[in-house]
Amino acid sequence: MKFVSIVMGSKSDYEVMKSCSQTLESFGVRFEMIVSSAHRSPARTAEYIESAEKKGAQVFIAAAGMAAHLAGVLSSKTVKPIIGVPMSASALGGIDALLSTVQMPAGMPVATVAIGKAGAINSAYLAMQILALNNEELASKLKEDRVTKAKNVEKDSSEIETIIAV
Amino acid sequence: MKFVSIVMGSKSDYEVMKSCSQTLESFGVRFEMIVSSAHRSPARTAEYIESAEKKGAQVFIAAAGMAAHLAGVLSSKTVKPIIGVPMSASALGGIDALLSTVQMPAGMPVATVAIGKAGAINSAYLAMQILALNNEELASKLKEDRVTKAKNVEKDSSEIETIIAV
Amino acid sequence: MKFVSIVMGSKSDYEVMKSCSQTLESFGVRFEMIVSSAHRSPARTAEYIESAEKKGAQVFIAAAGMAAHLAGVLSSKTVKPIIGVPMSASALGGIDALLSTVQMPAGMPVATVAIGKAGAINSAYLAMQILALNNEELASKLKEDRVTKAKNVEKDSSEIETIIAV
Amino acid sequence: MKFVSIVMGSKSDYEVMKSCSQTLESFGVRFEMIVSSAHRSPARTAEYIESAEKKGAQVFIAAAGMAAHLAGVLSSKTVKPIIGVPMSASALGGIDALLSTVQMPAGMPVATVAIGKAGAINSAYLAMQILALNNEELASKLKEDRVTKAKNVEKDSSEIETIIAV
Amino acid sequence: MKFVSIVMGSKSDYEVMKSCSQTLESFGVRFEMIVSSAHRSPARTAEYIESAEKKGAQVFIAAAGMAAHLAGVLSSKTVKPIIGVPMSASALGGIDALLSTVQMPAGMPVATVAIGKAGAINSAYLAMQILALNNEELASKLKEDRVTKAKNVEKDSSEIETIIAV
Amino acid sequence: MKFVSIVMGSKSDYEVMKSCSQTLESFGVRFEMIVSSAHRSPARTAEYIESAEKKGAQVFIAAAGMAAHLAGVLSSKTVKPIIGVPMSASALGGIDALLSTVQMPAGMPVATVAIGKAGAINSAYLAMQILALNNEELASKLKEDRVTKAKNVEKDSSEIETIIAV
Amino acid sequence: MKFVSIVMGSKSDYEVMKSCSQTLESFGVRFEMIVSSAHRSPARTAEYIESAEKKGAQVFIAAAGMAAHLAGVLSSKTVKPIIGVPMSASALGGIDALLSTVQMPAGMPVATVAIGKAGAINSAYLAMQILALNNEELASKLKEDRVTKAKNVEKDSSEIETIIAV
Amino acid sequence: MKFVSIVMGSKSDYEVMKSCSQTLESFGVRFEMIVSSAHRSPARTAEYIESAEKKGAQVFIAAAGMAAHLAGVLSSKTVKPIIGVPMSASALGGIDALLSTVQMPAGMPVATVAIGKAGAINSAYLAMQILALNNEELASKLKEDRVTKAKNVEKDSSEIETIIAV
Repeated sequence: MKFVSIVMGSKSDYEVMKSCSQTLESFGVRFEMIVSSAHRSPARTAEYIESAEKKGAQVFIAAAGMAAHLAGVLSSKTVKPIIGVPMSASALGGIDALLSTVQMPAGMPVATVAIGKAGAINSAYLAMQILALNNEELASKLKEDRVTKAKNVEKDSSEIETIIAV
Repeated sequence: MKFVSIVMGSKSDYEVMKSCSQTLESFGVRFEMIVSSAHRSPARTAEYIESAEKKGAQVFIAAAGMAAHLAGVLSSKTVKPIIGVPMSASALGGIDALLSTVQMPAGMPVATVAIGKAGAINSAYLAMQILALNNEELASKLKEDRVTKAKNVEKDSSEIETIIAV
Repeated sequence: MKFVSIVMGSKSDYEVMKSCSQTLESFGVRFEMIVSSAHRSPARTAEYIESAEKKGAQVFIAAAGMAAHLAGVLSSKTVKPIIGVPMSASALGGIDALLSTVQMPAGMPVATVAIGKAGAINSAYLAMQILALNNEELASKLKEDRVTKAKNVEKDSSEIETIIAV
Repeated sequence: MKFVSIVMGSKSDYEVMKSCSQTLESFGVRFEMIVSSAHRSPARTAEYIESAEKKGAQVFIAAAGMAAHLAGVLSSKTVKPIIGVPMSASALGGIDALLSTVQMPAGMPVATVAIGKAGAINSAYLAMQILALNNEELASKLKEDRVTKAKNVEKDSSEIETIIAV
Repeated sequence: MKFVSIVMGSKSDYEVMKSCSQTLESFGVRFEMIVSSAHRSPARTAEYIESAEKKGAQVFIAAAGMAAHLAGVLSSKTVKPIIGVPMSASALGGIDALLSTVQMPAGMPVATVAIGKAGAINSAYLAMQILALNNEELASKLKEDRVTKAKNVEKDSSEIETIIAV
Repeated sequence: MKFVSIVMGSKSDYEVMKSCSQTLESFGVRFEMIVSSAHRSPARTAEYIESAEKKGAQVFIAAAGMAAHLAGVLSSKTVKPIIGVPMSASALGGIDALLSTVQMPAGMPVATVAIGKAGAINSAYLAMQILALNNEELASKLKEDRVTKAKNVEKDSSEIETIIAV
Repeated sequence: MKFVSIVMGSKSDYEVMKSCSQTLESFGVRFEMIVSSAHRSPARTAEYIESAEKKGAQVFIAAAGMAAHLAGVLSSKTVKPIIGVPMSASALGGIDALLSTVQMPAGMPVATVAIGKAGAINSAYLAMQILALNNEELASKLKEDRVTKAKNVEKDSSEIETIIAV
Repeated sequence: MKFVSIVMGSKSDYEVMKSCSQTLESFGVRFEMIVSSAHRSPARTAEYIESAEKKGAQVFIAAAGMAAHLAGVLSSKTVKPIIGVPMSASALGGIDALLSTVQMPAGMPVATVAIGKAGAINSAYLAMQILALNNEELASKLKEDRVTKAKNVEKDSSEIETIIAV
């Protein structure tokens, strides 16, 4: 049973990260979502990643703010792809979390997405793009979603389109 | 024939990006590497991504500097995973390329890695982690590589280890 | 029929970008305003720019936030001047959109203006300055506007001017 | 006699800005290039802009570093389009010049391009795109240049293209 | 009649800059406060500085936000000391105004103080410190103010002082 | 009687810094908390540090915002460990206070913690970790706190844990 | 046998970190210095911290660059004080390592010092200040060092002191 | 005997700060230049400022890098104007020193100039502009210097002026 594992460093990340789980759910993709901190619960984090991998986790999504080490810590424990979502949890607007997540040393990648809600959603999309490499049905859904998104742009446009021929 | 596609926005990125191709090669992973610019050759870029996908490209690695749009442009044309490598091509140290690559809008992810050479190498590792989800042999090699890396740390340490018991 | 084309990457940019269209309208300058995304509707964007150019678009104004690629994508499809307006759409205050818009590679310019509302208004002024090179009437209006602006400064000043001769 | 006026704030900017004049020259576009400082020679700058405009200057390119006020000062004296090139003249990598150039208040635009050499070249291209709105020959040359650029990308690519079918 | 001249680039700066005028007033220092923009009213600004200097302005305080050129423009017109107050007028928190104000080229100094309200108050103090070099009474008041400030720290402290001897 | 000394540069820091004193109190650690400014009350600050050290202060915690010199000034007066807490007191989000606190010259360290509330709490923890080197009871409490924190993560997780087996 | 433990994330940090060990050595303070990476050798890092603590490590100094997680990982495994030294290992000048090190969540402090060599030296001083709380001899040496430093300033000054009485 | 006092935090600042003393010397302005550190020699710094003020110091110029506290410390000890010159002494390009110098709290101003050499020269000019308020001869020299600077711009321009009338 393949699934996506979502780990967030703090319960306070849930408000943003539910955009991730809702996106996966809307595509019918299995996931598991927990709180586990790189720093406050290192043992739990280490155990979780091992058990999750055994249960079938294909991709891990790690959301954390400030000195965001969670994605990096996961990356050090598995060779499954790790997606890092930098949270905007401090007065610095998330640039601390972004740099802490993306600037990983050679050989230990974290697939980093945008800060905050856009990143939460994109982590779900990226996980699905990875799963879709071996899941034709999911690939089709992602392609359809692109068509829908393009149509939505047209709809959005029709609401504000203005032509002023003075 | 599944392979990794490496696209760089400028020939000047090659010096850094050969770390990517060499990494893939050292693991025996098929790849194709070309120059194609989001801005200077948009048609070539669009055509390439379509043909590469047909030929079997599973993951695209896009390297670009400054207002680095290449990864985003690729992302808009396919639902295959796109890995973005920000180049340090301006006096700003690559923060321009990093933000241009990672801050993608919801629904259009780019898996962003570190700026410059570390990112070039990590783009290869991330691509291989993705392929390894369905390639046991590659997964094993990645796990062995982790063991080697850990051993190299020990070797490195032995060269500088100092215990001063004054 | 010459006109200014305003393209915004998301409907959410409208609240800011109506300052652009209102400025053009107040000067009696023809314009067309649509939503089209570099990433979510790349085909629509490509088609639009071609058709707009045929219809008489002289200058394109592209507004986008985060990894703001819209202006760059337009720039790659036409040799008409492209004005980029960086939106402040993330927790980073628009520095991401600014760098993504302005740091274009040699040969593919985007005329970048200020982040947010000041930039939205300035994109209209810049477009009009360009059109005014061959439109004496518009040039006169722009000069008059400068006179008005200078007078408004005096009016503003009179409201707060203080001379304390203790 | 229409021409492009290039003003740089310091002779030390010449090394970078000759990329601008050479670009204009290679397209056969008339230009005038001088040094005049917003701060050290404000009178000269004010007189120059007036006389240049009378002589036929259509577009002004202003290059300056640090607290780069030159483009803004030009902008306050004319309604001709002003293109600002931020120089990387301090230890801050040009971010000071970029913000000083681009963050103009509403109604006083500066068309800002990239920091340093890429910006110097792009200022020439942007000026030519503006002139080309009423110069079919120049527009054709710019379109041809795009074709050449796309071909050069292919040439560049052929030098590094690698296909490893392990 | 010696006085301090306060020039702000926009009426919207008044809310912050009244902290400057109130500080001067509380010390019984003559001042004049006007709105004049470097960009929107360059002629007024140039005329004002000349007339103010003739009337006895000893120090100029210039407050502006974004691409804050006002202090620099004043600096180019007089050898009287210019104090620059960067306003936090954009989403960038005033770093744009700070760099535009402080990074002046050699020979054209602007005495830059903190962003926003602290800077508005400090511009008044700095102006008074300069005037006090030849005004014993003002120097005494400034010294007394230091004593008061130190006492206020003690008062503030007494409100929160806590000693927990568990 | 060993204790921790908390010095804040302004009464306005109290709202944040009470998280520090409350943390110490909850562990039963003696502390003293005062307001004293590096700039507004330099004599008081110098006298305080001397008397506090005589009374038994083991560690000093200094909280200040903007050009945060307080920790550095304390560092110059004693060889006791100084912990610096950067306050987010300006529009720059505390990056000014962070750099002013952490970038101390060789030989004069300040142990810097995170900006704002997280830093206020961490300054208390760091002070206790230092004291615990010679206080077994405190060391035990700190270890128990880690166990509690890890359990709290589990509790937090249970509130949001979701497993979607579509 | 109490000692200071120095852990660096990469052998390449040695060139900078030997300033740390040399400082400790010059004061006759016992230390142990090894390479162990948070990401490449997580098991070794976990084992080392446990064994080092048992052997008598009082303070840990962790040096790492880029997404510098080493200090944070150590912090999660012990309640001994952890000093973090951000290395300038990327084109971003160490701001990435600084934020990754200092912005730790509440309860898990890292005592962060300056970027690079100044920080390497300061990590040694901070460790010694902590040890000196229970080591009178070391405290005396640190106080003498301050006297020496002050005298060196005088010596340095004498080399450049200039008094020009024109 | 009125003079300008130049204090630098480290002998290594001399290479840059001699631009300051040479500028003062070229105008025949008395100055005294010493090394004294806010942190390494706080007593010397405090004593110096008192004695210098007694000897006739009118303006203090303080140059320091990194967490540049020197200007702020001087500011806390006198009501004479303090000019701060941020040195580019770390990998951060001087932004640390700039923020540490300029972001002073209300009531304790530091007149901050540009980072590095331009700031060193400008600190001399600003000091002279202050002295010139009561020194007609110096005021005349400063005005002449402006004329010279403007002429030099013309000379510089003549070396690169190009008019291409294709």
